[in-house]
Amino acid sequence: MTDNHNDSILPGLTPEEQQARISLFNEAEFARLLGMEIVEARPGYAKVVMDVTGKRNQRMHAHGGALFSLADHAFGVAANLGLVEEVALSARISYLSPAEGLLTAVAQCVGETGFCSTYRVHVFRGESLVATFEGQGIKNPRR
Amino acid sequence: MTDNHNDSILPGLTPEEQQARISLFNEAEFARLLGMEIVEARPGYAKVVMDVTGKRNQRMHAHGGALFSLADHAFGVAANLGLVEEVALSARISYLSPAEGLLTAVAQCVGETGFCSTYRVHVFRGESLVATFEGQGIKNPRR
Amino acid sequence: MTDNHNDSILPGLTPEEQQARISLFNEAEFARLLGMEIVEARPGYAKVVMDVTGKRNQRMHAHGGALFSLADHAFGVAANLGLVEEVALSARISYLSPAEGLLTAVAQCVGETGFCSTYRVHVFRGESLVATFEGQGIKNPRR
Amino acid sequence: MTDNHNDSILPGLTPEEQQARISLFNEAEFARLLGMEIVEARPGYAKVVMDVTGKRNQRMHAHGGALFSLADHAFGVAANLGLVEEVALSARISYLSPAEGLLTAVAQCVGETGFCSTYRVHVFRGESLVATFEGQGIKNPRR
Repeated sequence: MTDNHNDSILPGLTPEEQQARISLFNEAEFARLLGMEIVEARPGYAKVVMDVTGKRNQRMHAHGGALFSLADHAFGVAANLGLVEEVALSARISYLSPAEGLLTAVAQCVGETGFCSTYRVHVFRGESLVATFEGQGIKNPRR
Repeated sequence: MTDNHNDSILPGLTPEEQQARISLFNEAEFARLLGMEIVEARPGYAKVVMDVTGKRNQRMHAHGGALFSLADHAFGVAANLGLVEEVALSARISYLSPAEGLLTAVAQCVGETGFCSTYRVHVFRGESLVATFEGQGIKNPRR
Repeated sequence: MTDNHNDSILPGLTPEEQQARISLFNEAEFARLLGMEIVEARPGYAKVVMDVTGKRNQRMHAHGGALFSLADHAFGVAANLGLVEEVALSARISYLSPAEGLLTAVAQCVGETGFCSTYRVHVFRGESLVATFEGQGIKNPRR
Repeated sequence: MTDNHNDSILPGLTPEEQQARISLFNEAEFARLLGMEIVEARPGYAKVVMDVTGKRNQRMHAHGGALFSLADHAFGVAANLGLVEEVALSARISYLSPAEGLLTAVAQCVGETGFCSTYRVHVFRGESLVATFEGQGIKNPRR
């Protein structure tokens, strides 16, 4: 499930369209500001990394907003690599432990209907789960 | 409820301690990175502003993580201006409309028990509500 | 905001249609099983009452599911008294204190777009807030 | 992970204490009212079943409150079979599809700290996932 499928052809998208879309996410202002990098992505799945340095709160742990942003970015990428564009409606995060250093968010689709989808994102530091995230998106026809 | 009480004495904290704590939040790495400024704060209440410019997603609207971060910062400030420190356990955000420009987050305590509290945060662009946020924190003895 | 508007005409619905719809909610199996009664309802607003007796957990407080059900029912009624039918996508509840006796849920629309809406529900025992709830619904054309 | 461990000895609890606690949950008023039956339970894990009949909404699908109640009950059982009692603080549910018939909720601990834990619950009809739930609990010393 975590094999690299970056070079696979997305359903309905050419490899060039796929790479172009991933680039759009990587080059978005907020992704650049926080240094979030997409490591792996395909429809329904994304892995994104970020270093917490420079994004800490007054206790010198990862700011809750930084953790959420990383998870939300992974959700956004995973939900927008198919033909149908999705817009986030709501999300929830649960914090399990204070985080620092290099973090990895893994987003996975857990359910999908004709008009919406639900994604789960786990945020890890190494092997340790530091936060869980669930996001819901609504589908808009793109083409 | 939105009068400026910045110069009031917090329960159990001197005015100097109060200002020092607000400064800690303003000077936190992530607050500086995103340009979040505390406009008003007292125990159980905070108002924080941020300009979305530079924090946009690939659609050139405020990134969901930027909206959440602003709301979460207001929650964190409001919940940490008393004697008892709080740590966030979970939070939820609902997005009402795409946002841009200058945003204001207003955090308000909605309920509190001996070991936890619940805060509601509204994020506005001008008079328009763009997102609602609810956060839960757990209390740790600070002194 | 809590004045009785039960006898007002809903936008696009005749008073008879309005009453018929409220009756459908009152007569739904689960509403009958739990004894949830709609006290007041108009588009975007509903007040529903329920006695906790018979719906307690092993600690003899209101079961979390009973509290959620009351809030969710108020949300469902408030969101379905206009021309456009709504279906719930997600909801969150925060528990503030153990509850017993007669409870009242007050649902209020906090934001609405062309395809979804967000509702907040407060659950009270008397004047005391025992839980907060937020639900999101998606709109389906009804007619 | 889904093998039957009902007869195993819980950490710190005798088999008799374990069965007594499961019986308390099964015999709770709300569990009896909704007909929720614990199929399997051990610390950090629970499987509970319920028939939707008699718990439907005005559209004759499972009421959102009934789905939540089933998930919440599984969460409560799984989080309360060890020495340390847990009380729910908040929960979120995402609805994936309308449900009817016999439902099964499977609760699993996803993270735990010294003062709280996070549980994920999946609600199935047969093999089909109809709702996802996440609950957070806070620990109270029991003995």
